[in-house]
Amino acid sequence: MNQQIKDVNYTLTVFDKVRIVMVNTTEPGNLGAAARAMKNMSLSRLYLINPNNYPSAGATARASGADDVLSNAIVCNSLDEALEGTHLVIGASARQRNIKWRQMDVIEACCEIQETIASSDQEVAVIFGTENSGLTNEELDLCHILMTIPGNPDYFSLNVAAAIQVFAYQNFVSNIQTNFNDETNKLASFEELDGFYKHLEQALDHLEYFEEARPKELLMRRLRRFFGRSYPEQEEIAILRGILRNIKPYGKK
Amino acid sequence: MNQQIKDVNYTLTVFDKVRIVMVNTTEPGNLGAAARAMKNMSLSRLYLINPNNYPSAGATARASGADDVLSNAIVCNSLDEALEGTHLVIGASARQRNIKWRQMDVIEACCEIQETIASSDQEVAVIFGTENSGLTNEELDLCHILMTIPGNPDYFSLNVAAAIQVFAYQNFVSNIQTNFNDETNKLASFEELDGFYKHLEQALDHLEYFEEARPKELLMRRLRRFFGRSYPEQEEIAILRGILRNIKPYGKK
Repeated sequence: MNQQIKDVNYTLTVFDKVRIVMVNTTEPGNLGAAARAMKNMSLSRLYLINPNNYPSAGATARASGADDVLSNAIVCNSLDEALEGTHLVIGASARQRNIKWRQMDVIEACCEIQETIASSDQEVAVIFGTENSGLTNEELDLCHILMTIPGNPDYFSLNVAAAIQVFAYQNFVSNIQTNFNDETNKLASFEELDGFYKHLEQALDHLEYFEEARPKELLMRRLRRFFGRSYPEQEEIAILRGILRNIKPYGKK
Repeated sequence: MNQQIKDVNYTLTVFDKVRIVMVNTTEPGNLGAAARAMKNMSLSRLYLINPNNYPSAGATARASGADDVLSNAIVCNSLDEALEGTHLVIGASARQRNIKWRQMDVIEACCEIQETIASSDQEVAVIFGTENSGLTNEELDLCHILMTIPGNPDYFSLNVAAAIQVFAYQNFVSNIQTNFNDETNKLASFEELDGFYKHLEQALDHLEYFEEARPKELLMRRLRRFFGRSYPEQEEIAILRGILRNIKPYGKK
């Protein structure tokens, strides 16, 4: 897989301008899983407000190869401290709130992030609340945007590390374009395909395959559709024509 | 949040037509986390090939409220068995492979899924390999598409449940449209905003604005919300503070 950064000069620092802030996380495993989720999506700046049992072996185990993100995490005593230097503050929430914060889903929030960090000195924080209750109203007071993750209306209980994984993925794909190098084999040209279809038609004629119940026009269209759908390569067409050349008449005679 | 199903009649059954297949999962916790990831994104059909230690208390604990998805999982002895009745088979892979499967990223794969299940009786399987080594070439031979999840080119080590979470999220948002009703010069920083709010609170105190019927905490929250919603720019905050500096005490005296 060949991932192309949408605009190299602009995007190389994008991921460094986004910090993940975890508030009052109770389960150490979630700290590790969050670090792993972040690193998989090129995020590295983790802020922890009053984490329970950090550092710990449990957290490090779940971080897998992302223990650098975990051990470089900045521990703060207050959310204010973690937000210093940021310009856009986004709070993650599982549910819509009664009071009117500006709300958007994670896709739109990632667009806002892109716009904000396009200005050179601007940074973004995305805040995730404690496991059972999420962010408090006082914590959301510090946010410009309340970000929701779309999901099952009848059961929405995303683990905090899973929520960070979804956000980090969406933020990654909002900034990076994936291109697959089809250094693969050369596709057959129109002429090569057309030559094959003519050859096939002759061979089927030769086999006396077509008859009233199997009209040539209809069946050739079906066959074209079938072969065409697989985007045949040059070599594959050569193989198929080799097969056709080996067909000997048989049948009704 | 107002989630709109893109086409009601069509989409209501979409999520039932996608099965998640986990092959030789070794860690029971990952089974539970996968069930939870699925249910959060409206998927419910889980197939397990030779799971290690299933059912188990560890898996159920991690499933949280999604233990129904876990307990309804269909255990199979072979991948072939799990794929019976499907029409599109997608294998998840962390890395590009040498051999030429048709490859696409998770976004494109979800488009293929939509096209496939648009036909009434067609189903889709998405296969996730064992934790350490992923899918074997023999398993990928059964797939029409090799699906990759975009991510950090220097560290890509998604936990299998995290990979299922990302897929399930992408599949959900590919089918559901979230609508919220809702621009920039240089935005005020967190410190600038916070300084403004403190200044505002002092000024209102000075004006003896707060009283029993106008409690400070509630009203300051309302004011924060009001100003925050408009994404104040640096210049605007400067203007507002200029106004505050001009406030002279008046009123009850």
